[in-house]
Amino acid sequence: MKLLKDKIVKDGKVLSNQVLKVDSFLNHQIDPPLMQAVGEEFATRFKDAGITKILTIESSGIAPSMMAGLILGVPVIFARKRKSLTLVDHLYTASVHSFTKNETNDISVSKDFITAQDTVLLIDDFLANGQAVLGLLDIIEQAGAKLAGVGIVIEKGFQPGGALIRERGIRVESLANIASLENGQVTFIEEETSK
Amino acid sequence: MKLLKDKIVKDGKVLSNQVLKVDSFLNHQIDPPLMQAVGEEFATRFKDAGITKILTIESSGIAPSMMAGLILGVPVIFARKRKSLTLVDHLYTASVHSFTKNETNDISVSKDFITAQDTVLLIDDFLANGQAVLGLLDIIEQAGAKLAGVGIVIEKGFQPGGALIRERGIRVESLANIASLENGQVTFIEEETSK
Repeated sequence: MKLLKDKIVKDGKVLSNQVLKVDSFLNHQIDPPLMQAVGEEFATRFKDAGITKILTIESSGIAPSMMAGLILGVPVIFARKRKSLTLVDHLYTASVHSFTKNETNDISVSKDFITAQDTVLLIDDFLANGQAVLGLLDIIEQAGAKLAGVGIVIEKGFQPGGALIRERGIRVESLANIASLENGQVTFIEEETSK
Repeated sequence: MKLLKDKIVKDGKVLSNQVLKVDSFLNHQIDPPLMQAVGEEFATRFKDAGITKILTIESSGIAPSMMAGLILGVPVIFARKRKSLTLVDHLYTASVHSFTKNETNDISVSKDFITAQDTVLLIDDFLANGQAVLGLLDIIEQAGAKLAGVGIVIEKGFQPGGALIRERGIRVESLANIASLENGQVTFIEEETSK
């Protein structure tokens, strides 16, 4: 997605070979027209997938999911993160390890909002090690719902998450897929609509 | 705002005289067309206030803020919540006590995104005791920014937050203001566009 890649090059900050900071338009300050374009792109790519719900995770997945949900005409659910859950009544839960923060959180989704009748699109802001997506997949499985695929705003293609998920035969659509952050430069993996 | 009040009556769950659960359309599952209508209403009410930024707090404030930001044509910043902040370099921070959860979190906003040149609209999903809004006001003050006012999706008018903030001469626009949850019934304070 050209608009997004241009924005990353212009306003993203490469802090190291591993870390790209995009907090001026995606995960602290949000650029609403860009989120609208991102939502439209997800909606276009998944328009024939029969989606009934979008599932994301708080907080940075909410804005792009909201716009995709508005365009696809489906509700958005955001999984909540907690240090640890004591009351798990009527919740699907999964554990998600963050390598960046070196901490494990429980995520949860109410059983009211995803059921075996749903076809779910997962959306998240970043795909790096894939732990958040794996946690969300776990929840979809617990619900017995059908998975339409995974929509990612920015994939760090040089980290293992994308391969881990595609290996399972899951459709992953990343709107910008980064090949490398070396020498302070963002280079992208050329896009072809993945299967 | 009639659409919102109708939704609260239809899908909100009164759990006690104090607690209204709206997690089927606002703070766990999100209803995108409703959020669009909410965003339009905020944009209409504050259209002449010269707003340059919207400030909210993760996570449930993000969806309505995003829609208001899209319509007003301004960026949205969401304050991040942390148990406690150790690295406060280049951040505005404030403490926010939650009476519901009986815990205090630090909230933070990067100094990059709010400056003395900004006119800021605060948006949040709920106004009850007002602690989150007070924390956000503190941050706006630290930035030396101008405050346009406060936009609230649902105010619990029987709790002290609204009075606490209006007392300071701050414009508060609540799209639904609840008078009481007694006897399992939601009753609203009749709306008049507050000054």
